[in-house]
Amino acid sequence: MSIILYDLAGADPDLRFSPYCWRTRFALAHKGLPVETVPWRFTDGAVIAFSGQGKVPVIVDAGKVVSDSWVIADYLEEQAPTPTLFGGPTGRAHASFVNAWADSILVGAIARFIVRDLLDIIDPKDVDYFRSSREARFGATLEAVQAGREDRVAAFRDLLLPVRLHLRKNQWLGGAAPSYADHIVAGTLMWPYCASRFELLEPNDPVAHWQGRMLDLYGGLGRAAKRA
Amino acid sequence: MSIILYDLAGADPDLRFSPYCWRTRFALAHKGLPVETVPWRFTDGAVIAFSGQGKVPVIVDAGKVVSDSWVIADYLEEQAPTPTLFGGPTGRAHASFVNAWADSILVGAIARFIVRDLLDIIDPKDVDYFRSSREARFGATLEAVQAGREDRVAAFRDLLLPVRLHLRKNQWLGGAAPSYADHIVAGTLMWPYCASRFELLEPNDPVAHWQGRMLDLYGGLGRAAKRA
Repeated sequence: MSIILYDLAGADPDLRFSPYCWRTRFALAHKGLPVETVPWRFTDGAVIAFSGQGKVPVIVDAGKVVSDSWVIADYLEEQAPTPTLFGGPTGRAHASFVNAWADSILVGAIARFIVRDLLDIIDPKDVDYFRSSREARFGATLEAVQAGREDRVAAFRDLLLPVRLHLRKNQWLGGAAPSYADHIVAGTLMWPYCASRFELLEPNDPVAHWQGRMLDLYGGLGRAAKRA
Repeated sequence: MSIILYDLAGADPDLRFSPYCWRTRFALAHKGLPVETVPWRFTDGAVIAFSGQGKVPVIVDAGKVVSDSWVIADYLEEQAPTPTLFGGPTGRAHASFVNAWADSILVGAIARFIVRDLLDIIDPKDVDYFRSSREARFGATLEAVQAGREDRVAAFRDLLLPVRLHLRKNQWLGGAAPSYADHIVAGTLMWPYCASRFELLEPNDPVAHWQGRMLDLYGGLGRAAKRA
């Protein structure tokens, strides 16, 4: 039986762009677990009320409900130990650092490049909620937050220096094989990749080359993703 | 037989402040390996010419010469597998990301707070080399680089968000036990801790609490370190 994944979607139900849902998509594919996704919108809180909270990803695995991409990764690693996501407890702890880095540095930085673009792809019923909640968070209009992004993109690319430096000697963030660290960072980058036409990465950046390899993994899961 | 470690020292030979040598000190202590340190100064290149390069840390283990803190960690893990530094190949790869993060984000940021202070503690014979090489690197005088640090320290503390976020759910960067990821970040922070009196961390910061635990490890190795 397939695992059900409640997955953030745009007005176009095939457009999936949540950085957290993409982490889970990659992790499920890594485990070779069949998945059936359910398009979900920001204002569909009631649809996942059964999970006891209001955000996606949420998975349902034979009646077992798990939410939060990190908790889901833990659950999958426990249920289906190979191929491993973490490579043991120390690898898991170090991946938690990568997760914390992505959440505290990368997500907020990317938002400043695409948050206005998101308005153009989300479901019409989400627009008012999205604008008011995000403008409250940033203390500025979405247009103002995104303004001047061409001038700021070089500084953004500098934030990826740790990834770039690591990739000098490693094919994947997980070393010789992809790990959940790859899913964290590549999943986060699927967000601007699917939701915006703005080029956050230079095509000749080693990070972009790695991203290309990630798009090709798992039968081209990322490559097949619908883009704005 | 003790491992010999060539370790950056100040005018006071007991003052040891290299962020890379400290990573190695912690890793050696983690393995429970006896070490004999040799104070080394920036202009003592000839002393370690036998290593085929000009920087510390360099270790000599029963005639085997290894340089570069990351390569040394690999060597130690191979020679003395337990207690582990990496927890296997995936943990090692994820630690490489932490190392890349520390090197590309943390080291350069810390330098801007203490580089002028370093002049006051390094050996007199290193002063001219240190000032000219660092001023060339920064394109400014050491005084100008360090100026206004009180106003910039909040932004520096934000760079540590990934560590802070990870520590919400973990005692150590390595999870339930310290790993080389702890040595990387704590070793890097030994640099300002030993070389400067400037308070980079707020005392009530969870990162400072973790640093305190790191100072107490291995019989209080860090706690016993001489400070400027």
